[in-house]
Amino acid sequence: MTRSLAAAGAPGTASTPVSTPVLDLSLTGGELTALLVDIPSVSGDERVLADAVEAALRALPHLTVTRDGDAVVARTDLGRAERVLIAGHLDTVPIADNLPSRVEGDLLYGCGTSDMKAGVAVQLRIAATVPDPNRDLTFVFYDCEEVEATRNGLGRLARNHPDWLAADFAVLMEPSNAQVEGGCQGTMRATVSTGGHRAHSARSWLGDNAIHKAAPVLERLAAYQPRLVSIDGLEYHEGLNAVRIEGGVAGNVIPDSCTVTVNFRFAPDRTEAQAEAHVREVFAGYDVTITDSAPGALPGLGHPAAAAFIAATGTTPQAKFGWTDVARFSALGVPAVNYGPGDPNLAHTREEHCSLAAVTECEKRIRAWLQE
Amino acid sequence: MTRSLAAAGAPGTASTPVSTPVLDLSLTGGELTALLVDIPSVSGDERVLADAVEAALRALPHLTVTRDGDAVVARTDLGRAERVLIAGHLDTVPIADNLPSRVEGDLLYGCGTSDMKAGVAVQLRIAATVPDPNRDLTFVFYDCEEVEATRNGLGRLARNHPDWLAADFAVLMEPSNAQVEGGCQGTMRATVSTGGHRAHSARSWLGDNAIHKAAPVLERLAAYQPRLVSIDGLEYHEGLNAVRIEGGVAGNVIPDSCTVTVNFRFAPDRTEAQAEAHVREVFAGYDVTITDSAPGALPGLGHPAAAAFIAATGTTPQAKFGWTDVARFSALGVPAVNYGPGDPNLAHTREEHCSLAAVTECEKRIRAWLQE
Repeated sequence: MTRSLAAAGAPGTASTPVSTPVLDLSLTGGELTALLVDIPSVSGDERVLADAVEAALRALPHLTVTRDGDAVVARTDLGRAERVLIAGHLDTVPIADNLPSRVEGDLLYGCGTSDMKAGVAVQLRIAATVPDPNRDLTFVFYDCEEVEATRNGLGRLARNHPDWLAADFAVLMEPSNAQVEGGCQGTMRATVSTGGHRAHSARSWLGDNAIHKAAPVLERLAAYQPRLVSIDGLEYHEGLNAVRIEGGVAGNVIPDSCTVTVNFRFAPDRTEAQAEAHVREVFAGYDVTITDSAPGALPGLGHPAAAAFIAATGTTPQAKFGWTDVARFSALGVPAVNYGPGDPNLAHTREEHCSLAAVTECEKRIRAWLQE
Repeated sequence: MTRSLAAAGAPGTASTPVSTPVLDLSLTGGELTALLVDIPSVSGDERVLADAVEAALRALPHLTVTRDGDAVVARTDLGRAERVLIAGHLDTVPIADNLPSRVEGDLLYGCGTSDMKAGVAVQLRIAATVPDPNRDLTFVFYDCEEVEATRNGLGRLARNHPDWLAADFAVLMEPSNAQVEGGCQGTMRATVSTGGHRAHSARSWLGDNAIHKAAPVLERLAAYQPRLVSIDGLEYHEGLNAVRIEGGVAGNVIPDSCTVTVNFRFAPDRTEAQAEAHVREVFAGYDVTITDSAPGALPGLGHPAAAAFIAATGTTPQAKFGWTDVARFSALGVPAVNYGPGDPNLAHTREEHCSLAAVTECEKRIRAWLQE
């Protein structure tokens, strides 16, 4: 049986002014998730949802609310010994004919349910229902996480208002099946190239085939034994893989260049410089060019706020393999973990959904941590 | 010092009717070459030159002239025991700012000098000056050799008028530095593909990398020992080469397919079916698809007309590695060789030129063969 939990008005577009939808923060986390999902907010088009979030937060007298573009920040200033930051992005990938939301049993279906309006609903519920937390709180809601890094709202806040992001510990509510995922691996791309000499393929012995010369590059990749690394009790799993190969001039020409693009995912005990040195060592003798990279983030689970958080969530932390915005907090000196009710394997899929029970569970665990 | 040999009127275009240029076949071979070069005839635009050739041939009472599109055929019918065919294409690659022609010492520069108006000039000189040959002659001048095979004028004649091409032996006047090149090698292209499973590159162990699995394909190519084959005293040199490689989905995805395109150049003692079997054997265990192929042509130097031709040219025949239209004659059951005054290494270059002495030499050798 299918029914809709959502009661919000129709969403607006830039060319159709609409009144700001009202977010009733007394609803359950699941009901609030549906309300959020039914306000479309594809990256770059978050204004209506950001307005609604801002209005709901401004109605809470214990919070100070600020805004930068479509990022909204709300904070307590209670003079507590520690400050923790709870962050989530408002945007979604493009809608895949999966709105409005619908409920089937415990599952809420729709674009952005898992990634990550369920997490945003938990943020809003905590903001509304924990007016006197044991740690000062900063809630960050931001835009453009699902698009190129230069547009990322959290990155913009870090550039424009780094003080807004100051904290002792951060929880990023990206989908993680309500498990704590610590840190994240770094990622680096490089090209490994071979050269040669062109010749007509009818007289191939006059040329030098760059594609044939790439054989040892692929052999080294095929034989590569990735490192398994334990940090703060979390096991990271590296990987070095070809993600593209290109070579060839024409069907009758011996090719004079071949380029393999590799992606190295590295555990956060390596710096970017160390990761680069490793890639260059693996492909010694070849022309290696680093094309882009992003550092990993150490899990930082030794911090007291993190330890208390893990105890409160009652889960065994796992390593985070994919790169997430926790690395932005790490770069700011703020230990951070992923912890959200969504399912990362469903993110960006047409059948995206989340468990309503997981939303309730996450909200309960975070509230317990802030009221212990 | 630079001067122009050409005296022809300005060439016309389709939208500017012009009178047909007059080809004076009493000029020297070199002078006639310059005249031909100065009538532009890029593939598909051969009409003015074909008209001029047809008019010049129709003025010769010992020849019967026919035409199909911009291909012109002229023949003697003297009831000789043998018929030989002398063929050349009228078209050139696009002009590279290298017209009109110019002479420097023994060299005539310009688009189409080597490939192959020098050869066409020899054909015309022989047609005009050997009215009583010891073998019946068929002269074929055709269009669109420099473009895709489906447009090739010789192929069109073979489809529309195979009887016009009947002969015991054929000489194709493609540039060969006035050396006899026998037969030609076949060419076959195939794709060799690997498959795998996509996965996010942050969790590469969940995928199966198709690019890594291409390593043995490149190893086999790098280790391949091409065959050297002697046929009719000519040494052919085979080659099996990657000419393209492609694989990759996105910078963060383990790729699920990789395709290597290989080009096999095979000696004319292999049929296309045998060449295909060989390629499949080399890449046993992989997904091999033949994408195109063209058979080689045996040199056919055992034929009495060929033996007499070689004796008359006084050269040692060489194997032809590249595919040429001699294979079309071979497919019609007509042994054929390349023999032309141009330099194949200069074909299609901006600095294309030919030796005027070579034009004279070729004309002299062919005349001797037909009057011995």
